[in-house]
Amino acid sequence: MDKKPIGVNFFIPMPVVLVGTQVNGKDNFMTVGWCARANANPPMILCGIGNHHHTVKGIVEHQAFSVNIPPSGLIEKTDYCGLVSGEKIDKSGVFDVFYGTLKTAPMIRECPVTLECRLVKSVPLPANTVFIGEIVGAWADQRVMKDGKPDFPAIDPLFLTMPDNRYWTLGKYAGDAWSAGKNLKQQSPIVLRKDGT
Amino acid sequence: MDKKPIGVNFFIPMPVVLVGTQVNGKDNFMTVGWCARANANPPMILCGIGNHHHTVKGIVEHQAFSVNIPPSGLIEKTDYCGLVSGEKIDKSGVFDVFYGTLKTAPMIRECPVTLECRLVKSVPLPANTVFIGEIVGAWADQRVMKDGKPDFPAIDPLFLTMPDNRYWTLGKYAGDAWSAGKNLKQQSPIVLRKDGT
Repeated sequence: MDKKPIGVNFFIPMPVVLVGTQVNGKDNFMTVGWCARANANPPMILCGIGNHHHTVKGIVEHQAFSVNIPPSGLIEKTDYCGLVSGEKIDKSGVFDVFYGTLKTAPMIRECPVTLECRLVKSVPLPANTVFIGEIVGAWADQRVMKDGKPDFPAIDPLFLTMPDNRYWTLGKYAGDAWSAGKNLKQQSPIVLRKDGT
Repeated sequence: MDKKPIGVNFFIPMPVVLVGTQVNGKDNFMTVGWCARANANPPMILCGIGNHHHTVKGIVEHQAFSVNIPPSGLIEKTDYCGLVSGEKIDKSGVFDVFYGTLKTAPMIRECPVTLECRLVKSVPLPANTVFIGEIVGAWADQRVMKDGKPDFPAIDPLFLTMPDNRYWTLGKYAGDAWSAGKNLKQQSPIVLRKDGT
């Protein structure tokens, strides 16, 4: 056995987003690393957020939140929003804010892509709650759109790894999805062995 | 307004994992892009999986699944597992398989980090189900561990972007989390303006 057990508290590398809410009438933003799509159609996205966070109050109160994708150039403010709580510090002026359809899901103009979400379901877990929201609006800077699709190197997202607690940029193009494995598919239904034969 | 609405079906960049299950007595692996941590303690991870997928049967039957992190060198087999369904093609021989504590959560030896998970909760959504599992075992190649922590450049994970459908590698180190924003924190509680002053 070449593999050894490590601590079970392992974190997969995660895209970094800023979750926007309105709490007690003030815009608030929190850095969140536990975010993924949840449902294909209608499009839903989810965020796992610690139950003690100020952001939770805003989501519960307004049943709405935004998901903003900060570019790597915004690393300082992005990290800042994870360092201080809206309960103690007013973060409403950190970014230039705009609104879409939902008037209680503040979005960040400095982020090239922003999503406004209506809460669909809350899944309470011991330490966190998974908030699942339907994406009701998506906004992008025209400079990050290419042939009608988001151009991810231009969006320049950040990733977070833990417990080394590092941010990373998006790396190199590695291949096409639903395509890179086509040669192997042509060999199917031959049962592939580990040496690929 | 410099931002324009784009289609709401936006996908944040996502880490690529292979979800392992046992379906009808056979090991099966599916490429999954909708995966994130869900709870801090006890450590839980979640996957959003289309309701029609073969993998769902295995998770429901055994209340268990594995999450495997393929390195970029495994891109062809990783993509293959997203191209063909276990319902039609036997994928049990694609990888070298090992087991930890759970005997129905097959893990992939070729993946430098693998997690075995016991199902805690299923959250049904219209097209997908979010499966939340407690991580009961985590396994790693010693070569990807550094000072007791996972070394992510050595793990060499893949990321998926949609709808351009591209895989990407992990990029450059961009900064330290819970640290890069410390200068701004020292300026608190001054309300920061968008120009950072």
